[in-house]
Amino acid sequence: MDKWKIVSEKSILKSRFFEVKEQEVALPDNKKRVYQTVERLPTVNIFPILSNDKIYLISQYRPMFGKRILEAIAGHVEENETTLAGAKRELKEEVGITAFQWEEIARIQKSASIIKETAHIFLAQDLELGEAQPDEGEDIALIKLSLAEAMEKVVSGEINDAVTMIGIFMLDRLKREKKL
Amino acid sequence: MDKWKIVSEKSILKSRFFEVKEQEVALPDNKKRVYQTVERLPTVNIFPILSNDKIYLISQYRPMFGKRILEAIAGHVEENETTLAGAKRELKEEVGITAFQWEEIARIQKSASIIKETAHIFLAQDLELGEAQPDEGEDIALIKLSLAEAMEKVVSGEINDAVTMIGIFMLDRLKREKKL
Repeated sequence: MDKWKIVSEKSILKSRFFEVKEQEVALPDNKKRVYQTVERLPTVNIFPILSNDKIYLISQYRPMFGKRILEAIAGHVEENETTLAGAKRELKEEVGITAFQWEEIARIQKSASIIKETAHIFLAQDLELGEAQPDEGEDIALIKLSLAEAMEKVVSGEINDAVTMIGIFMLDRLKREKKL
Repeated sequence: MDKWKIVSEKSILKSRFFEVKEQEVALPDNKKRVYQTVERLPTVNIFPILSNDKIYLISQYRPMFGKRILEAIAGHVEENETTLAGAKRELKEEVGITAFQWEEIARIQKSASIIKETAHIFLAQDLELGEAQPDEGEDIALIKLSLAEAMEKVVSGEINDAVTMIGIFMLDRLKREKKL
């Protein structure tokens, strides 16, 4: 079945966080197809949770949507950095939190075609609060809410960012299974 | 707070399913920042479900990953087409199914920054099976499995496509709340 072959690939645009590539693919009947795809740097997405089931999300102005979005703490993994190191760095920079227990609870592909974007979801526990050092231009408010409240916002559509939804669904499931 | 302003915007690359844009944004302190973002056509993602809690997913070869992926039936919304019409068309074309009951159960943003990609998740019920008419190059196998089996594959990571995960989480929740 899997007789598709990538015949050639070239980069047609490089941006800071993504690259556009063009791939020529040979189908099983030897017909050729040209695809253009976007490859984004991997992201880490962090869900800090307290022992009383409160979690931390952030509210942040997103130019792409022209408004503030309620979402998980997140950022790109830098070159020569492990995903865990990236998660620790983003949690500290964006909201000033240090966590002493870490677990990657999911590794997801945001799309199955066209756009290649891997997101690593981390659960962060045993927290120590400190001072944030946000990047220039970041305007981040830390929001503490219960897992049940977060779940309601997912169901109502108030939280509609894919990775944030998945993280909350996974925490909710871990909680129901007494694994949290 | 929300004093960010988009000062200018231009298109720098157009592909069949996405466009790369460059935006100049003025920060609250009047500093300027340049962003490059990708805007993808909206997608519809369809979860057909039978009265015995079996759902249909598909297995499809994805050149981007070099392997077959287990995922929801999905496609892009065409110009001059409503999302519901697009969902009906994709369900019929990809797997030959006609559904007589439709509900949009979630509308999600796959990313909060860099890539703008809206996904509409539809629940499709009251199904009639027929003949598929896949696009050239599509190699799609219809997979019937129980909602519980699908949920296990989400938790194990075998299903790791974001929208497919979210749809299954939502169906699982509807089921537990006796709304399905």
